[in-house]
Amino acid sequence: MSDAAIGLIGLGTMGAMLALNIAEKGFPIAVWNRTTAVTRQFAAGAGDLAARITPTESLEALVAAITPPRAIILMVPAGPAVDEQIAALRPLLGPDDMIIDAGNANFHDTNRRAADAAAAGVPFLGIGVSGGEEGARHGPSIMGGGPIAAWDRVAPILTAIAAKHEGEACATWMGEAGAGHFVKAVHNGIEYADMQMIAEIYGVMRDGMGMDAAAIGEVFRGWNAGVLKSYLIEISAAVSVATDPVTGSPMLDVILDRAGQKGTGSWTVIEAQHLGAAIPAIEAAVMARNLSARLEERLAGEAVFGAAPRALPGSLSLDVLEQALIAGKILCYAQGFALISAASASFGWALPLPAIARVWREGCIIRSAMLDDMANALTDAPDRNLMLAPFFAEKLASAQTGLRDTVAECARAGLPVPALASGLAWFDMMRTGRSTANMIQAQRDFFGAHGFERVDGGAGKHGPWGAHG
Amino acid sequence: MSDAAIGLIGLGTMGAMLALNIAEKGFPIAVWNRTTAVTRQFAAGAGDLAARITPTESLEALVAAITPPRAIILMVPAGPAVDEQIAALRPLLGPDDMIIDAGNANFHDTNRRAADAAAAGVPFLGIGVSGGEEGARHGPSIMGGGPIAAWDRVAPILTAIAAKHEGEACATWMGEAGAGHFVKAVHNGIEYADMQMIAEIYGVMRDGMGMDAAAIGEVFRGWNAGVLKSYLIEISAAVSVATDPVTGSPMLDVILDRAGQKGTGSWTVIEAQHLGAAIPAIEAAVMARNLSARLEERLAGEAVFGAAPRALPGSLSLDVLEQALIAGKILCYAQGFALISAASASFGWALPLPAIARVWREGCIIRSAMLDDMANALTDAPDRNLMLAPFFAEKLASAQTGLRDTVAECARAGLPVPALASGLAWFDMMRTGRSTANMIQAQRDFFGAHGFERVDGGAGKHGPWGAHG
Repeated sequence: MSDAAIGLIGLGTMGAMLALNIAEKGFPIAVWNRTTAVTRQFAAGAGDLAARITPTESLEALVAAITPPRAIILMVPAGPAVDEQIAALRPLLGPDDMIIDAGNANFHDTNRRAADAAAAGVPFLGIGVSGGEEGARHGPSIMGGGPIAAWDRVAPILTAIAAKHEGEACATWMGEAGAGHFVKAVHNGIEYADMQMIAEIYGVMRDGMGMDAAAIGEVFRGWNAGVLKSYLIEISAAVSVATDPVTGSPMLDVILDRAGQKGTGSWTVIEAQHLGAAIPAIEAAVMARNLSARLEERLAGEAVFGAAPRALPGSLSLDVLEQALIAGKILCYAQGFALISAASASFGWALPLPAIARVWREGCIIRSAMLDDMANALTDAPDRNLMLAPFFAEKLASAQTGLRDTVAECARAGLPVPALASGLAWFDMMRTGRSTANMIQAQRDFFGAHGFERVDGGAGKHGPWGAHG
Repeated sequence: MSDAAIGLIGLGTMGAMLALNIAEKGFPIAVWNRTTAVTRQFAAGAGDLAARITPTESLEALVAAITPPRAIILMVPAGPAVDEQIAALRPLLGPDDMIIDAGNANFHDTNRRAADAAAAGVPFLGIGVSGGEEGARHGPSIMGGGPIAAWDRVAPILTAIAAKHEGEACATWMGEAGAGHFVKAVHNGIEYADMQMIAEIYGVMRDGMGMDAAAIGEVFRGWNAGVLKSYLIEISAAVSVATDPVTGSPMLDVILDRAGQKGTGSWTVIEAQHLGAAIPAIEAAVMARNLSARLEERLAGEAVFGAAPRALPGSLSLDVLEQALIAGKILCYAQGFALISAASASFGWALPLPAIARVWREGCIIRSAMLDDMANALTDAPDRNLMLAPFFAEKLASAQTGLRDTVAECARAGLPVPALASGLAWFDMMRTGRSTANMIQAQRDFFGAHGFERVDGGAGKHGPWGAHG
């Protein structure tokens, strides 16, 4: 009975795929789901892999089926369900038995659960798993957090099931407690921004250039052979050329423009605010999802102001758009890595920036050719703003004109490109030695006597406005 | 002895000014400061008003000096100091005695303190006070939160000391608990964005047009006679024309471009994230302050990329810039009021939007002529997006071209205008019936089987990408 190498609770889409992946890699696994019918259905559909899968119908049976010291993966919805599951499971476990939360936990929750586990002297890991259903089944990107000894114990399994980049597994220990879930949150934030920038460029082609979905798909397909080569560009091509089986129209044209979100992008923005880090491209992407949901209000806006002309004056070529997306992508990732760097310092972690770029090269949603170059740049200088790394500085120097032209023409035509525009503004702020914050400081000193520093380092921290004008 | 109408704790700049204001309006006031020397110095410097001020040297003496039922204003630094002061003071008070936190509290803290007070059956108010030192002394804008009966008890004093707009006092009860401090937080967020947009336009004149500070000051002075008439434009003119007494240079040119912040802008952004509200102009302003502090990194960026050309090709006139600022300002306030509307619904408050616009017309930092028009528009339809109100829709329709031209030319020239650009992107998203979020939904369905809605309302919530490509 007790020959399973690992256990898994929660056979929803992600849990089921992860369990099959584990079994396929040769590890006997015991599984349990709150609804027994789900467990039975899963086992019945496991085919050849069923031999390595032990379906169980109680938590006790699950625990009994695993070889001690045990490791049990939770794949239940993030939030209270995780705490409830831990509370139900922990009393059945020995002191060396490990619980691994592989769901989409907020890293603050993981920090709390890690502290509880540490106080109880039991091992606990929080791991971020990216790659969607497909990744979970055939090789996700795994970002681990918790005691290194606990990670090492299960690393053989996690490494075996993870995606591989030229033989190197995309499964890495990021640090203590919630470090793995934090890195996963930033991954998701970057994912939001990368998707949003692609959607913005799609909009330029659709509305500004009058291209149909199939033609747009061909453009994405072409770009996927170049610098932009990535999973997200690849699937953007695929969805663009797909046909709706119901109407025969392009699938994209049939899909309502009301985007959902699970809140992880918003978490990232909130953490960045706490850390004083600037991630405007991610902020813009979260905004775009929020506004997409307000369809009626947008229609009211269109009714009042009329549809924007949107058609571009014609000065933007597809090459210019490709350059815009290249520049935007570099800037968005530079913001994400800067956030990780800020968190690492603030939370007393030593988040391994180059390893993070490496673990994202395969398996996860944001996997791309460019991440390999980022890993190299971050290996050279982990704390340097990525846009200043010679490789990316050179790319930006040549691609920025395309980004400028795109933002400028879209501003004129009424095509919203919030992520690209805010990425550009961030770039221009980060390359400007003398900003306009002297005006802000003057205003603040005028109305609040907040004081300022002087460019000459001299004394006198207030302006000559005396009793405030 | 016990003839003071009110007490005040904390004689820092704001507390001292507020105490003088209260005394000046005819209300005897007892004051106490943790450091007795400060109390004595304050009383000694109170001049004619000293007759109405009772300086005290212990909390007990302070309490004894006030006529019951007492009201005592706290003007201590936001955070733990407020809790400590309440803990020290409350045992000395009777059940009808009221504590009023008039500092810059995070409204979540005010909610908590209000709940504690309600549980103890004692009155507590949290009031936001805006207007800086000058406002506190001669008439601030006051946003109250707490039990309406408690507000009514002190309203005669708060109304007397508040700023007046054509005789109407800028002191309003906003709702229960933290409602006043919440409205104050949004005020501060809008203040950030308004200041940032002014600073951006200042930068266009300075760097893009090569104007000197005095000439820029004259432009602001001219604008202050038109639609943009406001305290912030007025002081922008004043600081622009001021001369540094040390060097004889324009004061602005001597002030280092490293802006400080007290975090209230960031709070607003975080709340907006929790509420799913979009306030990109405020986000951009918070970002600009954060980045301004990274002077060394910006200098490194300038060293790598070279200074941007920045000089504008010459197509932007000062009239265009004025239009840009008018449009940007309307959009920024529309975002702020939309946030208040979202909070009102989410927190179960009934925040009085027209009254909020009215209370901001005088006394506070963002006071402006335009707020009177906003009060009118919000009176007509409190929940309507301000940009859709006929008065502002008309203004936007004519001013948007200036905003578009400014954002476009600045994008080309490398002049960062993050708040203006994100304000414009928000406008274009809110006037676009068919956005590009269909691409986002297609991508999400492709990699995560998230599903989508169809424009034809038909069934079939997944694309024909089967097992994900």
